[in-house]
Amino acid sequence: MGQDTAGRPSTMAQEIAEQPDALARTLAALVPRAAEVHALAAGTDRVLLVARGSSDHAALYAHYLLGLRAGLLTTSGSPSFATAYEADLDLQGTLAIAISQSGATQEIVGTLAWAKASGARTLAITNVAGSPLFHTADLTLVTEAGNERALPATKSHTAQLTAMAFVGAVLGREPRDLDALQAVPEAVAVVLATGTASVDEVAGLLVPTRSVVVTGRGYASATAREIALKLQETCELPAVGLSWADLLHGPLALLDERTPALLIAPPSGPVLAGTVAVARRLAERGAPVFGIGGDGTFAAACTQVLPASDLPEHLAPITSVVPGQLLAESLARQLGLDPDHPRGLRKVTQTDE
Amino acid sequence: MGQDTAGRPSTMAQEIAEQPDALARTLAALVPRAAEVHALAAGTDRVLLVARGSSDHAALYAHYLLGLRAGLLTTSGSPSFATAYEADLDLQGTLAIAISQSGATQEIVGTLAWAKASGARTLAITNVAGSPLFHTADLTLVTEAGNERALPATKSHTAQLTAMAFVGAVLGREPRDLDALQAVPEAVAVVLATGTASVDEVAGLLVPTRSVVVTGRGYASATAREIALKLQETCELPAVGLSWADLLHGPLALLDERTPALLIAPPSGPVLAGTVAVARRLAERGAPVFGIGGDGTFAAACTQVLPASDLPEHLAPITSVVPGQLLAESLARQLGLDPDHPRGLRKVTQTDE
Repeated sequence: MGQDTAGRPSTMAQEIAEQPDALARTLAALVPRAAEVHALAAGTDRVLLVARGSSDHAALYAHYLLGLRAGLLTTSGSPSFATAYEADLDLQGTLAIAISQSGATQEIVGTLAWAKASGARTLAITNVAGSPLFHTADLTLVTEAGNERALPATKSHTAQLTAMAFVGAVLGREPRDLDALQAVPEAVAVVLATGTASVDEVAGLLVPTRSVVVTGRGYASATAREIALKLQETCELPAVGLSWADLLHGPLALLDERTPALLIAPPSGPVLAGTVAVARRLAERGAPVFGIGGDGTFAAACTQVLPASDLPEHLAPITSVVPGQLLAESLARQLGLDPDHPRGLRKVTQTDE
Repeated sequence: MGQDTAGRPSTMAQEIAEQPDALARTLAALVPRAAEVHALAAGTDRVLLVARGSSDHAALYAHYLLGLRAGLLTTSGSPSFATAYEADLDLQGTLAIAISQSGATQEIVGTLAWAKASGARTLAITNVAGSPLFHTADLTLVTEAGNERALPATKSHTAQLTAMAFVGAVLGREPRDLDALQAVPEAVAVVLATGTASVDEVAGLLVPTRSVVVTGRGYASATAREIALKLQETCELPAVGLSWADLLHGPLALLDERTPALLIAPPSGPVLAGTVAVARRLAERGAPVFGIGGDGTFAAACTQVLPASDLPEHLAPITSVVPGQLLAESLARQLGLDPDHPRGLRKVTQTDE
C-alpha cells in the first residue's frame, strides 16, 4: 500500500484498498431494489445522463452498457442546457440519471430538477443519503462507499460504476447479468492483491515524463478517461484521455520515446484484438506502452503490463480502473505531491459561484 | 499569413485564409436543399451523430445547436457500437448524421450503414461528392471547402460547422436562423483581417510551455476541444481540451505560472459572465490566460485576447475556432515543425487495419 515518507499509508491508498468491501456493501443495498428501478424505467426508451468529472466517466461507462446490453441510446446531458441556457425540451419518455458522489453539486441537482420539470423520470446515484440530489430524484440509489476523505474519487467512483452495472442489468436483455455482478468485489480484491509492486515500478518510469496519453476503446475508453483525470488531478500531469480510435485520427503526434501511452484493454471481447494491434503500433513509434488488463498476447505487445481481472468486458471497467488509481497515488508520492490533497480540488464542486 | 523560413506561406495558412470563400460556397450549395433536409427529418425525434476527430467536434457543436435551438436530444454514436460490438438497436425515429471530410473513413461509412439497417434515416455531411459515405446516406450535404491539401483540417472543419448550422436552422424553431447564416463568411473574413499580428505574439509566448488547457462552456466547449486537437496534432503539445465546468471539477491542478489556459468565450449569451469569472479565477492561480472572443470585460480579465466575431452565440463557434487555427499554425512554425505534415497524421484515417 502507498506510504508517505513517514511510512504512513495515504488516505487515498486506504480508500483504494477499501473498494472490495465498499462494492459488496453497495451490491447488497441495491440488488433488492431491482423492481423499483424496473418500474421507474417502464415506458422510457432513452436515457439522459447528468454528471461531471469522475461521475461523468461512470456516465460514459453507462453509455456503452445501456446501449450494448439494454438497447438504450444515451445522451450526455450537458448541465449548461438547464443551468445556463434554460432549454425548452420535451423529455417525456426519457429516463434521466444523475450521478454525483456528494449529491450536493448544485448544477447536477438543478439539471435533474429541470429534467423532471421537462417530463423525464428521474433516477439519482449518490453516495450521500439525504443529500439535495437524493431529495430531487423520483428514485435514488445510494452507493455504500462510506465517507470518502481523500479528495480524488476512488471507492466512490467504482461504487458508481457498480451501481450503473446494476441499473444496466435491471434494464438489460440478459437476466443473468444481475447474478454476474456478485463476482465484482472479489475480482477487485484480486487486482489489489496482485498489482501493487509493479505499480510502483511503472509509476517510477512515469516520473520524468512531461505528459501521457491514456487510451482504450469501447467500455475501456471510459476507464481511460477516468485514469487520465486521476493523473491530472493528483499528479499535475497533462494526461490526454481518449478513445484509441480518436487517437489514430490525429493526436498520435503526441507520442514518442519520452511520451508514453497507458493503454487499457478488456480481458476479452471484440475490441481486444484491435487494442493489441494499437499496442504494437505505438511501440513501433518508440513510445513506451504501459498496459492495463488484457490477455497474454496484449501483455507481450506492451512494454509492461498491470494486470486487471478476467471479468466479462462489460464488468471489467470496475476492476481495470483500479491499477490506474494505484498508479496515480504512487506517482503523486514519487513526485513529492500529497495524493490526498491535490491543489485545486474540492470535494463538492460548484460550477457557478 | 504564416510563412516558413523561406518566406513561403504554409498550405495550412493558405487554407485558413480560404475559409470565407469556402463557407460562402458551402452556404450557396446547401441553402437550396432545405426542403430535402426537412423532409428527411420529418417524424424523427432524436439524433445520432457519427464522427471522429475534428468532425466529432462539429458533432459536439451540433449537440448544443440541435438541443438548444431544435429541441432534439443527440447521442454521440460511438462507431464501436456498429463496427466492433455489432449492437442490436432499434433506431426507428432517429436521424443519424455522419460527418466526415473525406467520406472515406471505413468505420464512419460502416456505422452509418449500420444505423440505416437499424431503422434510422441517414444524412451525411462530407467534403467529397461521390465518396463511399455519399453513396451510403439517404441524403448527403456536400461542403464546398475544396480540396484540402494540408493534413490538419481547417476549412473543411468550418465548412462542417456551417453545414451543421444550416441543418440546425432547418430543423429549429427560429425561422430567421437560416437568414442569419449569411453573415458567417464575412465574419470569418473580419477575424482573419484583424487577428494575425497578435496571433504570432501569443504563439511566441506558448513556445516554452509543456502543456496547455483549452476550455470553454456550452457551444464554446466544442471550439475548445477542436483547438486542443489542432495543438496536439500540429504542435505535438499535450493540450487538454474540456468544458470549464469540468475543469473546475478537478484538472485545475494542471494550471500554474508555466501552464497557460486558452479560454474561449462567446461574444454574448448566458455563459459569457461565467467565462469572465473563470478567466479571473485562473489568473488568480497565476496562470497566463489567453482569451479568444468574448467582449471588453472578458478582454480585461485575460492576459491577452485574440478577437473573434460578434455573431450570435450559436454561430460564433464558426468564427472563434479561426484564431485557434492561426495559433496552431504559428506555434508549429515557431517550434520548427511543418504545420502541413504533422507526424502521425493522415488525411483518411482507418481505425481498424
